[in-house]
Amino acid sequence: MPPPGKTHRPEKAGRFCDQKLANKVTATSLPKILPGETRRTMTHPNALEATRATYIPKHPASLHEHAAALRSDPPPAASEDVRERFPHTFDLPTVTFSDKNAQGESRPIRSGVILSGGPAPGGHNVMAGLFDGLKRIHPASSLFGFLNGPAGLLKDSGREIDAATVDRYRNTGGFDLIGSGRTKLESEADYRKALETARARELTGLVVIGGDDSNTNACMLAEFARKEGSPLQVLGVPKTIDGDMKGGSIETSFGFDTACKVYAELIGNINRDALSVRKYWHFIKLMGRSASHIALECALQTRPTITLISEEVAARSLRLHGIVDHIAGIIAARSANNQNFGTVLIPEGLVEFIPEMRQLIAELNEVLVTGWQEFSALETLPHKREFVTGCLSPESSGLYRNLPREVANQLILDRDPHGNVQVARIDTQRLFIELVEHRLKEMQSAGSYGGGFSPQHHYLGYEGRCAAPSNFDADYTYNLGFTAALLLREGLTGYVATVRHLTRPTWEWLPGGIPLSRMMNLERRHGNIVPVIRKALVELDGPAFKVLEANRDQWASETHFAFPGPIQYFGPPEICDRTTITLQLEANA
Amino acid sequence: MPPPGKTHRPEKAGRFCDQKLANKVTATSLPKILPGETRRTMTHPNALEATRATYIPKHPASLHEHAAALRSDPPPAASEDVRERFPHTFDLPTVTFSDKNAQGESRPIRSGVILSGGPAPGGHNVMAGLFDGLKRIHPASSLFGFLNGPAGLLKDSGREIDAATVDRYRNTGGFDLIGSGRTKLESEADYRKALETARARELTGLVVIGGDDSNTNACMLAEFARKEGSPLQVLGVPKTIDGDMKGGSIETSFGFDTACKVYAELIGNINRDALSVRKYWHFIKLMGRSASHIALECALQTRPTITLISEEVAARSLRLHGIVDHIAGIIAARSANNQNFGTVLIPEGLVEFIPEMRQLIAELNEVLVTGWQEFSALETLPHKREFVTGCLSPESSGLYRNLPREVANQLILDRDPHGNVQVARIDTQRLFIELVEHRLKEMQSAGSYGGGFSPQHHYLGYEGRCAAPSNFDADYTYNLGFTAALLLREGLTGYVATVRHLTRPTWEWLPGGIPLSRMMNLERRHGNIVPVIRKALVELDGPAFKVLEANRDQWASETHFAFPGPIQYFGPPEICDRTTITLQLEANA
Repeated sequence: MPPPGKTHRPEKAGRFCDQKLANKVTATSLPKILPGETRRTMTHPNALEATRATYIPKHPASLHEHAAALRSDPPPAASEDVRERFPHTFDLPTVTFSDKNAQGESRPIRSGVILSGGPAPGGHNVMAGLFDGLKRIHPASSLFGFLNGPAGLLKDSGREIDAATVDRYRNTGGFDLIGSGRTKLESEADYRKALETARARELTGLVVIGGDDSNTNACMLAEFARKEGSPLQVLGVPKTIDGDMKGGSIETSFGFDTACKVYAELIGNINRDALSVRKYWHFIKLMGRSASHIALECALQTRPTITLISEEVAARSLRLHGIVDHIAGIIAARSANNQNFGTVLIPEGLVEFIPEMRQLIAELNEVLVTGWQEFSALETLPHKREFVTGCLSPESSGLYRNLPREVANQLILDRDPHGNVQVARIDTQRLFIELVEHRLKEMQSAGSYGGGFSPQHHYLGYEGRCAAPSNFDADYTYNLGFTAALLLREGLTGYVATVRHLTRPTWEWLPGGIPLSRMMNLERRHGNIVPVIRKALVELDGPAFKVLEANRDQWASETHFAFPGPIQYFGPPEICDRTTITLQLEANA
Repeated sequence: MPPPGKTHRPEKAGRFCDQKLANKVTATSLPKILPGETRRTMTHPNALEATRATYIPKHPASLHEHAAALRSDPPPAASEDVRERFPHTFDLPTVTFSDKNAQGESRPIRSGVILSGGPAPGGHNVMAGLFDGLKRIHPASSLFGFLNGPAGLLKDSGREIDAATVDRYRNTGGFDLIGSGRTKLESEADYRKALETARARELTGLVVIGGDDSNTNACMLAEFARKEGSPLQVLGVPKTIDGDMKGGSIETSFGFDTACKVYAELIGNINRDALSVRKYWHFIKLMGRSASHIALECALQTRPTITLISEEVAARSLRLHGIVDHIAGIIAARSANNQNFGTVLIPEGLVEFIPEMRQLIAELNEVLVTGWQEFSALETLPHKREFVTGCLSPESSGLYRNLPREVANQLILDRDPHGNVQVARIDTQRLFIELVEHRLKEMQSAGSYGGGFSPQHHYLGYEGRCAAPSNFDADYTYNLGFTAALLLREGLTGYVATVRHLTRPTWEWLPGGIPLSRMMNLERRHGNIVPVIRKALVELDGPAFKVLEANRDQWASETHFAFPGPIQYFGPPEICDRTTITLQLEANA
């Protein structure tokens, strides 16, 4: 009887199997490690990473160095009110690239690139696509990477990106090739400094890979450069695992697909654990600063017992005790049915969408700014809590007093550089566990609940933000980068690179670009009216939420867990290449 | 230019793409869900699970229904002192199966099966291998699954396992087919009840899939059955993600490979995040009750900055402040080198290996048992803490007083049914963060540290325990189950199923079995001297720890992160089929 599975090959002797090497004493002091110079996958590749490095992203027919640019009407503006702020970059056409060849000779392009904000899977592939695109357009083109985010541009700190470096990072996760940072380009002084650096480095292009804020600032810089007569072309690339930079020609931001798949793998495993041991309720907080796209997508992939969606909480003005009652009610109903287990998905930003919590946080921010001196002089936590409680409105004060001790501390201790409460640091999953536990005890006393409650808490965030990109994200980001190179070739500025028709076969994807200014709205920020790209929140009449809404009662009362499993790179396309359920539903809508 | 990647196939319209279905109101009330009857993957398979269901585990040449059993000398006994306790099952031979055919006719076998204790990836495949083996031996054979662990045997609660059910669960994670439980078969009354159930169900075989305790009890039951003249053959299968049931013919317990790979995937992602944003120290607690095999294996796969190994802490009698100084020293050295980031792996059981913590926990267990009435009458936490502090020895009292508040609470509030402190519930990762933070502040005051310290904490446990098995675990468990069927065919009892030579190609793996009694040691448990299978701890002179020891200084002072990525099922064998580094090193030693 022959072996039915695939043939084994004997293990190659890896580094660890070499006893001499394993036992050697390593006394040499190596130089300190800079971004991109880390001796990581180079000297000690693992098998998957080594193989994955050879993956060539799929691309559409129209994505090649000679692709002709087709210009059409500008996309509808999010707000016409911003027109006067962008005289040079508002009335620009939509651009798409075609499989026809462009006319004329190409010239070398020298571009800079910046990774901005939190990492997202695929950032390195944007750089690879950009690098390949520039080199294909003209072999004398070059790419300069600014280190550690926009700060690198302001400080003129960076490095030339060469082919060997790019090859080391193809299809890898993380932003470690050049590092990232949260410095913002916001003031006119920043823009001037940016133009100076660009001029000194002889850059005619600058590609900013970032989220809504970074793309907003890219747009401002593009406009400023044109106003100043600078030749610098500034482009944006839509990045964020949160999935909230989308709309119009931007079907999804990159990284959302991979991060959701990693979280869904883990939620699926937790689902399976809940079903196997039948005694735990798992409360799982999911990264994602404001919007609940991650929680929604993960719910569609894994069918948990309960999913909270911040946007719904806000729209229905649900109060904290109402949400707690809702959860406790489901727990009691399942318990009566001998199902003392379940999974609950909680978006990270939820507390800011609960009206009274939002109010409390706003008041705390105020108290901590105005009363900082007195507050920080207090030595013990009880005194600090007492102090802030005294400064709050009666409603907020009552709410604050009844919060679990630890959450009450997190609300006053973990503050960002602007003095604001760090919402991401609040253990919302523990908050709900404590409140639900309290509610169940009340129900027990009243005789309306007779089961047990064994909670477990999880926070899934850093586990997925730097995962290696899925095939979808590897392809999408490479194409975004290559598209950015083509937009530079066209002499365009103030554009965001787009790749559309993402649920079709890659061969039919549509690369192009739209003017960033058409995505701008005017909003008040820190007392000033400024143009910003608005975060796209979950739409309650959108197809993704509708599916959750239609199914969640059944998922709560019965058990319909799904177990998506880990990201696969080498299997059938229906496993390896498909993207999020959200994107599929939105494309079909 | 043709597409270089694989051909896309258009997405099939899945359930979610059907708007009519999405919008339908589901008002029907379906019957409650029992283990094995859950409407999960059946009605809504996802692509990976559907494809994975068709995977046929690889098996060795010698694993077929006619394989002849070769008997050889019994394995060396862990302790000869247990001989008199196992008169019927001690002097039994080692058995291996060969690719020669056995003589004689096979008769139908009717066997029961139990999943015992915490889930581990591959449990369902043990059942599939057992089922297939029994059916191949004789088509009239049958398998009866006891529900929710050993309790199902005592209560005679179970279900017939048929082919359709087995097919639904092939290569899936979790223990939900028949559920698991932590009830132990320990008393003579339990054994009598077990034999009664077996007789009533006409079972001649019983396969217990469990860890050291469950296999100990399987051995006791086997001996008891022989003593009583019962025809019941009892076999064990070595399960536990902790990796601590091994030694001699048991090269590894099943589930260890998959769980470590899931954790290593996540640690690799966290490594990459640390390297990308260069500002966080991630403290990661890893599941694994006593032994540090999981932390060690994950360290070899991911090369974190710091790895704590409980067995080393105990062997070197390292004290809490010594470990904290060690971590703070590395943080300071890296900070001086502009590397304000890193990852720290902490085994779950660590606190019990730190001498003074072990002492404190022992005293607390004593206090909480003897002073329970007074303790539970106290209403507030500060009063409870004050009460226990007053009962402790001066050293323990001083230690307890200086613990972070939350950990101090966990030590007195989270207790198991025996009144003992639940070590798994202690947030060791937060304990170390607080203590290290405190130490760094002292160093800052003394001028020996000038950096920042931004910690993040993680606990990886339930995220991996029920993952779908890797190819290795899928193969290994299927073969263990099939081997158990062959051991039953041979009329053997008191054996544990083994599959050896696991680092060779599957075709050369060696199935067989050894008498469980040869693994027994005598130990004092709850005041009685009883035979037990000892947990295999990390050996400090073993090859796996040696590799960590030889490399860790370099991993701490520089950055050598590795990023193993997710488990792959469909790629090259060197990616999909290789097992843990620990097992490879031990095989080569």
